[in-house]
Amino acid sequence: MYIKTPTKGMRDFLPNEMRLREYVLTIMKETYTSFGFEQISTPAVEHIENLTNNEGGENEKLIFKILKRGEKLENAKKDDPNSLIDSGLRYDLTVPLVRLFANNHQNLSLPFRSFQYGYSYRAERPQKGRYRELMQCDLDIIGEKTNLAEIELITAVITFLEKLQFNNFTLKINDRQILKALINYAQIPIDKIDNFLITLDKLDKIGLDNVKEELNKLGISNDKIEKYLQKISEENPNLTDFCQDLPIAKEVAQNLNEIITTVKKLINVEIKFEPTLVRGMSYYTGPIFEIMAEGYQGAIAGGGRYDNMIEKYTNLQVPACGFSVGFERLIMLLEEKNFTIPNKNEKICYLLTKEMPQEEKTKILEEANQNRQKNQTVKIVYKNKNYKFQKDNLEKEGYKII
Amino acid sequence: MYIKTPTKGMRDFLPNEMRLREYVLTIMKETYTSFGFEQISTPAVEHIENLTNNEGGENEKLIFKILKRGEKLENAKKDDPNSLIDSGLRYDLTVPLVRLFANNHQNLSLPFRSFQYGYSYRAERPQKGRYRELMQCDLDIIGEKTNLAEIELITAVITFLEKLQFNNFTLKINDRQILKALINYAQIPIDKIDNFLITLDKLDKIGLDNVKEELNKLGISNDKIEKYLQKISEENPNLTDFCQDLPIAKEVAQNLNEIITTVKKLINVEIKFEPTLVRGMSYYTGPIFEIMAEGYQGAIAGGGRYDNMIEKYTNLQVPACGFSVGFERLIMLLEEKNFTIPNKNEKICYLLTKEMPQEEKTKILEEANQNRQKNQTVKIVYKNKNYKFQKDNLEKEGYKII
Repeated sequence: MYIKTPTKGMRDFLPNEMRLREYVLTIMKETYTSFGFEQISTPAVEHIENLTNNEGGENEKLIFKILKRGEKLENAKKDDPNSLIDSGLRYDLTVPLVRLFANNHQNLSLPFRSFQYGYSYRAERPQKGRYRELMQCDLDIIGEKTNLAEIELITAVITFLEKLQFNNFTLKINDRQILKALINYAQIPIDKIDNFLITLDKLDKIGLDNVKEELNKLGISNDKIEKYLQKISEENPNLTDFCQDLPIAKEVAQNLNEIITTVKKLINVEIKFEPTLVRGMSYYTGPIFEIMAEGYQGAIAGGGRYDNMIEKYTNLQVPACGFSVGFERLIMLLEEKNFTIPNKNEKICYLLTKEMPQEEKTKILEEANQNRQKNQTVKIVYKNKNYKFQKDNLEKEGYKII
Repeated sequence: MYIKTPTKGMRDFLPNEMRLREYVLTIMKETYTSFGFEQISTPAVEHIENLTNNEGGENEKLIFKILKRGEKLENAKKDDPNSLIDSGLRYDLTVPLVRLFANNHQNLSLPFRSFQYGYSYRAERPQKGRYRELMQCDLDIIGEKTNLAEIELITAVITFLEKLQFNNFTLKINDRQILKALINYAQIPIDKIDNFLITLDKLDKIGLDNVKEELNKLGISNDKIEKYLQKISEENPNLTDFCQDLPIAKEVAQNLNEIITTVKKLINVEIKFEPTLVRGMSYYTGPIFEIMAEGYQGAIAGGGRYDNMIEKYTNLQVPACGFSVGFERLIMLLEEKNFTIPNKNEKICYLLTKEMPQEEKTKILEEANQNRQKNQTVKIVYKNKNYKFQKDNLEKEGYKII
């Protein structure tokens, strides 16, 4: 009847795990605040319509759906699962951010620099590093059409990561307009662009043969796929050269070049133009980017420009750009390298005994409270019969016993 | 298709709202940490079995239920709503805490002092101060059978509230064992105790007549109800006198008296023994208490001892005691009294113009980053055509323009 483990793929966090998670969030908040970003928050429950509009890519298959209640459930057509559904748990923070902005833009001054962190939910098959409840940390600038947005976002995220003693970063950067031009160049039908890119993004995961098979199913012939893949096969291509024979405006390469040169001057990072970089979401419209850190295969942060998404909620053409840090990956990496949290306040522990008169106990409690006001961590415990064991444990936890 | 407002009864939080919420959480974390409590965290999604075991009282009627997925949904008996359900959103933090403890007790040293904050979910009819997503902040001591638990919890919570400039607190205190004795005294059948207390707890909300009617339905006759109500009708009863003619051990009143005298010495609070205090949950076993603050009708914090709950998950008899602060109420009250957050760092804003050469922009960005390292809040924006309006807005946000 009573179940002790968390639900499948979700996690409890004990104090030692929480200390690290909270430390990372504190550093993040400090850093993003210093860049003039302000914290916002949105509910974990979202309208099912907003979650299933085809912009969430593969995530839309992983939605936790909430059942209607009461009369509405009784009146639902039981044979149609969709009619049972009331709402869903969000799978990312971008949909809620755009909804929040659309609902409040008249009260916000532009450009709007925001950060948001919170849990998202995905009904994934649980495996190492993949959870059904995952902390996401997003940083966004809404209303900035110039590349100041990309430059500031990238600088802020790398500054944050540096404070956690990550180093030797590589920033991979590409542009959705270059991908569009590549698709034109390979004569792939433009109406297939979203599905083509989403499938191509799975290259690392499912391998070339499976990607080709999926693309064939979409009606894209092998010669076109080959032409595309051949063009992007060159290692470390030069951005300007690469764009030369593509059907694309000069400004796209120029803009990307400006981001690269400026960011290089501002922070210590290697930057690679990476035409194979796709990013899974269909809503990106311009530069897209990912950060890789030494000692880890995957990206630890990813983002890009999504200039058309807000229009779908507001009919206002407002540019936007975002960068999201893979919080759960960061924690995993920090734990793997036995990261130690910088030292905090003194911890002291008072001992009471059962035999003490109430007055004496009260005196100890008073003294404890005075020390707490000095920001010391003070615990009060009754002395155990097995004092040796208790003492060892308290000292292990860093307490000085008084 | 795209919906701008949050789902019914849930809220987005804009930067000015988040600043207050985050400030309150920071003060709370600092205070609880100084009392030797450590932060834990549990998922928002919980086993439906754990949420529907009759210990959640009225909250069990308000569960957001999550639909099964894939094959499991296909195989569900569509005419039985329960067979459609996979899990649910938690309605409080006590169930998950006890589950976490049951699952990890072998790695935790007792007494375990924990605090946890996070959102809970209740499908309430939305109204002022009642939300479907609500922040809860719990403080618990597991494994402490003496009243040191109650004393420390009450002191910690009042210390936290004092730092938010609340004052003139009243602590209402009662004991479930006194309630049990009252029930014996009024000859109400002991197997009706849970339902009797839950119904009685609605006195403020639904009035005496409705309470009586509900109790009649439970098979409790009016003369017994009258005997009970008559005994608790005296204003400001003296604890020792009150217990004199009840079938109850002397130690219960003695224990409660000890809590009252000690807490009074430790902090500035008025304490009232309140035999009408019930608290809605059936799991309480000993002292129960609520904090009232000047200028607000309801309680702003409530809690009590629940010594039998952990046994249901572990078969171990482990005492426990908790205190929960009504975070959403606190925020509402702070907003009502125009609480101002103590001042923070300097905020400065650099202006760029479209005409600036990239080099000059980069220099400004470099200078901005240097200031950010000094923990200043630094924003960079492009100068607008309507500079007067932009300047006013930035200054309103507290930025000094450079």
